[in-house]
Amino acid sequence: MSKAIPEPVTRLIDALSALPGIGPKTASRLTYFLLRAPDKLSQNLSEALRDLKARTRLCSVCYNITVDDPCPICADERRDKRTIAVVEEPLDALALERTGVFQGVYHVLHGAISPVQGIGPDDLKIRELVQRAQGDVLEVIIATNPGMEGDATAMYIHRELQRKGLKLTRLARGLPTGGDLEYVDSVTLLRALQGRNLMG
Amino acid sequence: MSKAIPEPVTRLIDALSALPGIGPKTASRLTYFLLRAPDKLSQNLSEALRDLKARTRLCSVCYNITVDDPCPICADERRDKRTIAVVEEPLDALALERTGVFQGVYHVLHGAISPVQGIGPDDLKIRELVQRAQGDVLEVIIATNPGMEGDATAMYIHRELQRKGLKLTRLARGLPTGGDLEYVDSVTLLRALQGRNLMG
Repeated sequence: MSKAIPEPVTRLIDALSALPGIGPKTASRLTYFLLRAPDKLSQNLSEALRDLKARTRLCSVCYNITVDDPCPICADERRDKRTIAVVEEPLDALALERTGVFQGVYHVLHGAISPVQGIGPDDLKIRELVQRAQGDVLEVIIATNPGMEGDATAMYIHRELQRKGLKLTRLARGLPTGGDLEYVDSVTLLRALQGRNLMG
Repeated sequence: MSKAIPEPVTRLIDALSALPGIGPKTASRLTYFLLRAPDKLSQNLSEALRDLKARTRLCSVCYNITVDDPCPICADERRDKRTIAVVEEPLDALALERTGVFQGVYHVLHGAISPVQGIGPDDLKIRELVQRAQGDVLEVIIATNPGMEGDATAMYIHRELQRKGLKLTRLARGLPTGGDLEYVDSVTLLRALQGRNLMG
């Protein structure tokens, strides 16, 4: 069998299989697609991968991925430096940016506390957050994910920051817009019930 | 929004999105995974992509992807050069290799006739097959896919080769092993009925 696959092909299949959600079948389909596609496609991809780490770093203020340090958001004078949204991953900051209403700045933890995965507070940018959450900072919005690990991380951060005299908030929990009560899980429904708001 | 994503990141997201079956969401998840992963992962992938086209070519005999020309299968003295299996893609040859019983050689068409996609016989390695199917060649097994395009391609090849005095065969059609009559589509069932074999 191995005779039928040249080494450069198996090598790319193996490298692609190392990505999450890409099994050996998808990897080989992608590889043979690239073999048939114009050279430019694999070239672009190769160069983009080479530059990804070489040209990016973490912002020394918020630890988001950036080319320039500080990152464009931290360097933007119009952003409100007194409000910090704490997120697990860069993509979470992106999701908040997409709402178009958040005017504050971010703090990217690069993960969440997870005893199962052996990730403790020291593996995250929590110490950096504690150091940063002073001076002009008025509010820290803990925007970790609404799950066990995100909740544990939020609780830990809350404990670390509570003596600083800041406003500490967390994103609201409840029914997702467009959701259907019938299909919503009971934990979400419970949180929606507990967090119910007075109307009118 | 674009402020939150540095250019090297969007560039990789765009390059990954160009792959079949990978949408912008998967592409950005993969990109941020690579940002967090050890450098070696993106490096390996980058180099494998660079080498994929640079180090491979088509075998001048069977048109399979190969590093050396002729490919290891065509160069193997133990393979029976008198039997040629015609397949659409390199992955199809691989599937036949996996059965472990085919001792002949391959001919890779690099596609199938498809009027819808504007692919005609001249876009495939059919002329090369006609030229190759002579001399010692005794049998050509047409192993194109069991579908409309594969059938059209098989018929075209059959017409081109029928005056050569070769044995022309096609892979059997019928029920897939492990399948269930109840769930099998009626075309497959019809082919299984028409192709029924005498028992005992």
